[in-house]
Amino acid sequence: MGVTTNQVKEYLLGLQEHLCQALAEHDTKDFITDQWQHQEGGGGITRVLDGSVLEKAGVNFSHVFGASLPKAASHLRPELAGCSFEAMGISSVIHPYNPFVPTAHLNVRYFEAKKPNGESIWWFGGGFDLTPYYGFEEDCKHFHQVAKDACLPFSDDFYPRFKQCADDYFYLKHRSEPRGIGGLFFDDLNELPKEQCFGFMQSVGDSFAKAYVPLIAKRKDTPYTEAEKQFQLYRRGRYVEFNLVFDRGTLFGLQSGGRTESILMSMPPEVRWGYQTIPEPGTKEAELTERFLQPRAWV
Amino acid sequence: MGVTTNQVKEYLLGLQEHLCQALAEHDTKDFITDQWQHQEGGGGITRVLDGSVLEKAGVNFSHVFGASLPKAASHLRPELAGCSFEAMGISSVIHPYNPFVPTAHLNVRYFEAKKPNGESIWWFGGGFDLTPYYGFEEDCKHFHQVAKDACLPFSDDFYPRFKQCADDYFYLKHRSEPRGIGGLFFDDLNELPKEQCFGFMQSVGDSFAKAYVPLIAKRKDTPYTEAEKQFQLYRRGRYVEFNLVFDRGTLFGLQSGGRTESILMSMPPEVRWGYQTIPEPGTKEAELTERFLQPRAWV
Repeated sequence: MGVTTNQVKEYLLGLQEHLCQALAEHDTKDFITDQWQHQEGGGGITRVLDGSVLEKAGVNFSHVFGASLPKAASHLRPELAGCSFEAMGISSVIHPYNPFVPTAHLNVRYFEAKKPNGESIWWFGGGFDLTPYYGFEEDCKHFHQVAKDACLPFSDDFYPRFKQCADDYFYLKHRSEPRGIGGLFFDDLNELPKEQCFGFMQSVGDSFAKAYVPLIAKRKDTPYTEAEKQFQLYRRGRYVEFNLVFDRGTLFGLQSGGRTESILMSMPPEVRWGYQTIPEPGTKEAELTERFLQPRAWV
Repeated sequence: MGVTTNQVKEYLLGLQEHLCQALAEHDTKDFITDQWQHQEGGGGITRVLDGSVLEKAGVNFSHVFGASLPKAASHLRPELAGCSFEAMGISSVIHPYNPFVPTAHLNVRYFEAKKPNGESIWWFGGGFDLTPYYGFEEDCKHFHQVAKDACLPFSDDFYPRFKQCADDYFYLKHRSEPRGIGGLFFDDLNELPKEQCFGFMQSVGDSFAKAYVPLIAKRKDTPYTEAEKQFQLYRRGRYVEFNLVFDRGTLFGLQSGGRTESILMSMPPEVRWGYQTIPEPGTKEAELTERFLQPRAWV
C-alpha cells in the first residue's frame, strides 16, 4: 500500500518536464537533454539551458543506489551512515543573465535506507530558495507567499518551521551572511503518513515555478549597467562558496561518487572574486546585505 | 637555544617583502598592504596586487593563536585537535592574466600546539606547486628542478617524498584529475632538529620565486586568442573546486574563524563554469589533461 518508488519517480520526471517548459518559455533557446548512467547502478537525466535570458539553468533528475550512505545524506540519522540506500530527486539552479532577476534553487528528494537488520527507513526532503542581487520587497513577499501557500494544506507549522530551517541552512558562516532571502528547507521528513509526506514534496515541487517564473518575466528586460552586472558576478562568488563549502547536497553527491558535471551544474556560468569588494554605504548594492540578506518575516 | 618563534616570524616577513618585490617587477602596478588584527589574538598583513600582468596576486602573512586546534590543521596528529595553538605562515597565490603563464601557489607555515599536560609540540609545513593552463615541458622541468635543488641540502629523500605528497594532495577526487603539475608539499615536519626543519622551510620559501618568476617573464607577452583566455577561465574553476572542497589550509582558516578575505585571496579573479566543457582531442587544451596533468617524473 501507500506510495511506491515508481510513483515518486514518475512525479519527479513530470516535474522536470514541466519546470523546463515553464523556464524555456522565457528564453530564446531550449534545454538540451543528457541521459547518463551511474557506474554503480542508477543514473539520471540532466537538462541544461545555456540561454540569453537564463545564462545557465539546470534541471537535473537523478536516481542512484549505493552500498553505503554517505554522512552528508541524513542530518538527523547519523546511525544510518554506511547503510545501503536509494535516492532520487530533482535539483534545479537557475542563473539569469540580468542582475535584477534573482538566482533560484529547487530541490526535492526521496531517500530509502536499509539497516543491516533489513528494516527500511524512508524520508523526503527538499525546498526552494531565492538569491537576489538587487532587492525588491514585492518579489521577496511574493516568493515567500507562494512558499507559505504550499505548506498550508499540510500543517500550520510547516511554513514557519521550514522557513526557519532555510534561514539556518543557507548561511555562510565564514561571511556571517545568509546566501539569499531563504524560502523553504526540509529534510528527514517522515512525521506524517507517507502519502502526505509525498503530497507535501509535490506541493513544494509544483510551487517553485509559481514562486520564481513570474520574477523572471517581470525583471528580465530591466536595463542594467556594467557595474550592476559586475556586482552580480561578484555576488555569485558567494553562491560558489556556499555550494562547495556547506551544501549537503553537493557534498553528498561528490562523496558518493556522483556525476560531477551534473552536481556542479549549480555553479554560476561566470563569477568574479575581488579583495575587500565592499559596496559604498547608501547604495542599492549595500542595501542587499543590510536590508534583504537578513532573516526577516516576509509574509 | 634553537629556533625562536620570533626568528620564524622575521624570516616570514622578509620572505613576504622579497616575494612581493620579485612579482611586482613584472607588473605595471604594485601591491597594496592591508594590516589586520584577529579578534582572538594575532593578525596579519595581506598584500594584494590587482595588476595588468598579474590579474590577481596575493601574498599573505598571518600569525594566529587559538584555544582549540581545528581538525584540518594537523593531518598526522589528530590527537592534538582541541589543543591550544599558535600558527604563522605565508600563503601566496598568483593568477596571471595571460593564459600561457601558469598559476602558482606557495605556502610555508610553522605550528606550535600545547597539550593539556603542558607539553609543546612544533612542526613546519609548506610547499609550492604549479597549475598551467597550457603545458610547456621546459617550464615544468625548470619548476621541478628548482624544487629538487631546494631539497637536496637537507635529505636525499625529501624531493621524491614531498613531490609524491604534492601529487597526492593536489588532486581533485571528484574529477579524477590533478590540480596541476605538482611540486612540493610537506606537513608535520619535525623529524630533523628544529634548526634544520626551519632551514628547509626557508629553502622552500626562498626557492619559490626562482621556480616561478622566470615563467612569468618568459610567457607574459605571448599572444593569445579569446578562446585561449576562455579556456583559462574554465580551468580556473578547477582551482576553486580544489580550494573550497579539499584544501586543508582554506578549511583550517575558515574553521578557525580566520579572516575570510585573506583566506579567499586564493580565489581567481574571474572564473567560468560550463556543462561538459571537454576540449576536442588533439588540441593543446586536451593535451593539458592528457599529457601534463598526470603524475610524472619531471626531473
